[in-house]
Amino acid sequence: MPNESNDQHDQDDGARRTTLELLEAGEIQNGLAHLGSLHPADQAHVLSALDPSLRAPLLTQISHDAMAEIFDYLKDDPRQALAEELEAARLGPLLDHVEQDTAVDILHGLPPERAQQAMAEMADAPALAPLLQYGDETAGGRMTTDFVAFQRDWTVDQALSHLRQTHPGAEQVFYLYVVDAGERLEGVVSLRQLVVSSPETKISDLMTTDVMSVAAMTDQEEAARRVQHYNFIALPVVDAQQRLIGIVSFDDLMDVAEEEATEDMFRMAGLAEHETLQRPIAQSVLPRLGWLLVALVSVIAAAGVVSAFEGTIEQAVVLAVFMPVVAGLGGNAGVQTITLVVRSLALGDVELRDVRRVLVREVLIGVTNGFVVGLILALVVYAWKQNVGLSVVAGVAMLLNMTTGVTVGVLVPVTLRRLRLDPALASGVLLTTFTDVLGFFFFLGLATLMIDQIA
Amino acid sequence: MPNESNDQHDQDDGARRTTLELLEAGEIQNGLAHLGSLHPADQAHVLSALDPSLRAPLLTQISHDAMAEIFDYLKDDPRQALAEELEAARLGPLLDHVEQDTAVDILHGLPPERAQQAMAEMADAPALAPLLQYGDETAGGRMTTDFVAFQRDWTVDQALSHLRQTHPGAEQVFYLYVVDAGERLEGVVSLRQLVVSSPETKISDLMTTDVMSVAAMTDQEEAARRVQHYNFIALPVVDAQQRLIGIVSFDDLMDVAEEEATEDMFRMAGLAEHETLQRPIAQSVLPRLGWLLVALVSVIAAAGVVSAFEGTIEQAVVLAVFMPVVAGLGGNAGVQTITLVVRSLALGDVELRDVRRVLVREVLIGVTNGFVVGLILALVVYAWKQNVGLSVVAGVAMLLNMTTGVTVGVLVPVTLRRLRLDPALASGVLLTTFTDVLGFFFFLGLATLMIDQIA
Repeated sequence: MPNESNDQHDQDDGARRTTLELLEAGEIQNGLAHLGSLHPADQAHVLSALDPSLRAPLLTQISHDAMAEIFDYLKDDPRQALAEELEAARLGPLLDHVEQDTAVDILHGLPPERAQQAMAEMADAPALAPLLQYGDETAGGRMTTDFVAFQRDWTVDQALSHLRQTHPGAEQVFYLYVVDAGERLEGVVSLRQLVVSSPETKISDLMTTDVMSVAAMTDQEEAARRVQHYNFIALPVVDAQQRLIGIVSFDDLMDVAEEEATEDMFRMAGLAEHETLQRPIAQSVLPRLGWLLVALVSVIAAAGVVSAFEGTIEQAVVLAVFMPVVAGLGGNAGVQTITLVVRSLALGDVELRDVRRVLVREVLIGVTNGFVVGLILALVVYAWKQNVGLSVVAGVAMLLNMTTGVTVGVLVPVTLRRLRLDPALASGVLLTTFTDVLGFFFFLGLATLMIDQIA
Repeated sequence: MPNESNDQHDQDDGARRTTLELLEAGEIQNGLAHLGSLHPADQAHVLSALDPSLRAPLLTQISHDAMAEIFDYLKDDPRQALAEELEAARLGPLLDHVEQDTAVDILHGLPPERAQQAMAEMADAPALAPLLQYGDETAGGRMTTDFVAFQRDWTVDQALSHLRQTHPGAEQVFYLYVVDAGERLEGVVSLRQLVVSSPETKISDLMTTDVMSVAAMTDQEEAARRVQHYNFIALPVVDAQQRLIGIVSFDDLMDVAEEEATEDMFRMAGLAEHETLQRPIAQSVLPRLGWLLVALVSVIAAAGVVSAFEGTIEQAVVLAVFMPVVAGLGGNAGVQTITLVVRSLALGDVELRDVRRVLVREVLIGVTNGFVVGLILALVVYAWKQNVGLSVVAGVAMLLNMTTGVTVGVLVPVTLRRLRLDPALASGVLLTTFTDVLGFFFFLGLATLMIDQIA
């Protein structure tokens, strides 16, 4: 059967659901038994979906090791929520068991006092302290110091016995780094090379010196882009003296790429970047309200334009019918452009130096479509209201406003980027402010000039 | 200096730009020399940015090997464009050198006749043919057959000498699969385990049997979600008999995750899913126009509602001023909800069984914010126009329409998913059709009832 895997997926899905239902029904022991049989990634999924009040009694019954594995798979928000539900005496030892970048992330997210308490309970605190100096959203803040490095003058035999002694994890041996006596990053070798080379070969003869790295202070988004651009599985992190201090791996950075996409979508729509459907309502209301009030100011400004033309509308009430059509389509055309520009900037597909070309391209598209849509609107207006003056005004205003939409759709995100702000931020509302205000102005202004042909 | 890496990045950036400028200025030989010194990922970037007319003379001067490496880094659209610019006699041998999943992708994208011609020039065509049976967007269509598999009854020593003979690439040795005599997937071992185990150990004693796989027909989006959920680097692909036939690796699937995010954003905005700012204008105009015409029909429907109330507006022209305010904010509130729901469905953060909870949550938020925004609007209207009737009508209509917005914002994507359509598809226009039509209806309908208090 070709959809074998969907069946397997459905099974996983079913097992998750059963577990969740048992726990929600208060059957704790039975639910815990089911939970234990799931993959840690699925356990993380179940715990995230569970109401915090139901979660509390469970947390004391899951072992450190099991919980640590779950923590490595939890997404940022539920992980932080869970960490805050644990006592310091429990959280500290737990942080010793999770991956370092996860521990750093959690400590960054806690109130300073709680972070101090948790660290006091950690065995690994001294090793973690240097990582805490890096910002949450930098390569340094995302890295782990669990990597394997060989000295350049070792032989293959020495390197292999180093591996046997240190027993590194599977992910750490994908890239084996080579450093000089001063810990400076010199090159990289693969485990495959070690396996197929004779034991007395020098590491420095095997290594590739063309190794790409990121500085610890590099923004995580930049690090993610580079990992993806070059298809790396991990990227070494170096300090200001080019010393190897950690690695960031693709799975962390894959999450970053996804988070950034979500963030852009949410910002364009006026949602807080960490909004989820699992969040308590009280936390969602205010951020959304703030944004809606910005939008309200914007439409009231547009209402001001309409108000200025009340005299014109009084002479031809039919203007009120087509006014929102012109404003709305300008917004639609602008949203197409702004979405494309915001996403292209985020993916690095277009740069600020391309602005002129992009603007010309979008205006040409906007004028073409504005002409067609304007013409169709003019015909619809004529067919409906048999009013030539109104028909001409609606068509011309439509062309003007759709051209405005695409122009503003390029200039808003580009200007935000120039100001070193996020191009997605507030883009939507800024755009429709222009297309509403100018849409009403073009349509009612032209109508005022041609009122004798309309009324 | 903490931003060492930004400097390195700026250098890469600069080298790319210099190369591009040389080639654009027609300095082909100099430009080619620069191009050759870049990382293949950066060469891909330069070739994508170059105008096709400038690109043509270059293509004949880049070696098969170099071009194959570039092809592995090109994004889908420019890669397809480039492939179509090459003659079959050139393209065939080139496809022998690229990764199999890339070759399959390109052949899928070509007109059948061109694909046949190219395959006639390929040495690797027989190996590729079975892969071509899988759809473009399935795990089978994305997989490569370059993987390493051991028989379960081999010893570590036999496995290592197999590795030395076959000289697999770095990515292929990350997971080493174990199969039975019938090629059925049984387990997985790591190279690290081989290295640290004694030579006579049986592979079957080392292997982990808990290995996750996907069926070849599984949708690529589902495969990508699973790789990301479990933080895998590669996922084995099996046929209906559970035989191991290929692997899909994280870098291909990371691109999938990014493409899916882009697709959702674009669909919500009414853009074709493969739209880019590099595309010829003629190809962009029609898809966008189609969408704008759908939007036009939608706003004309809303205009019909306004037209039905022309008599009311005639009695109080001031209604035309606040009419778009009520419609607009309903749309804004709805866009917040619909964006969150579409993204949560795409990421698997929420499922259809959660609809009732999500609807209750969003309606509570919508009513709360609708109440606040409605109250503020009522106060603004009163302060501006000193009209109590108008003030009450505007406030109440706002509350009703924002509640409509969030309700429709949940129901539209959920209904599309139930119908097995993409929740992002057409969501934006469907939403604003409701908030415009009902917004005008609530506001003008209430105003008609209370016209004595307003006019």
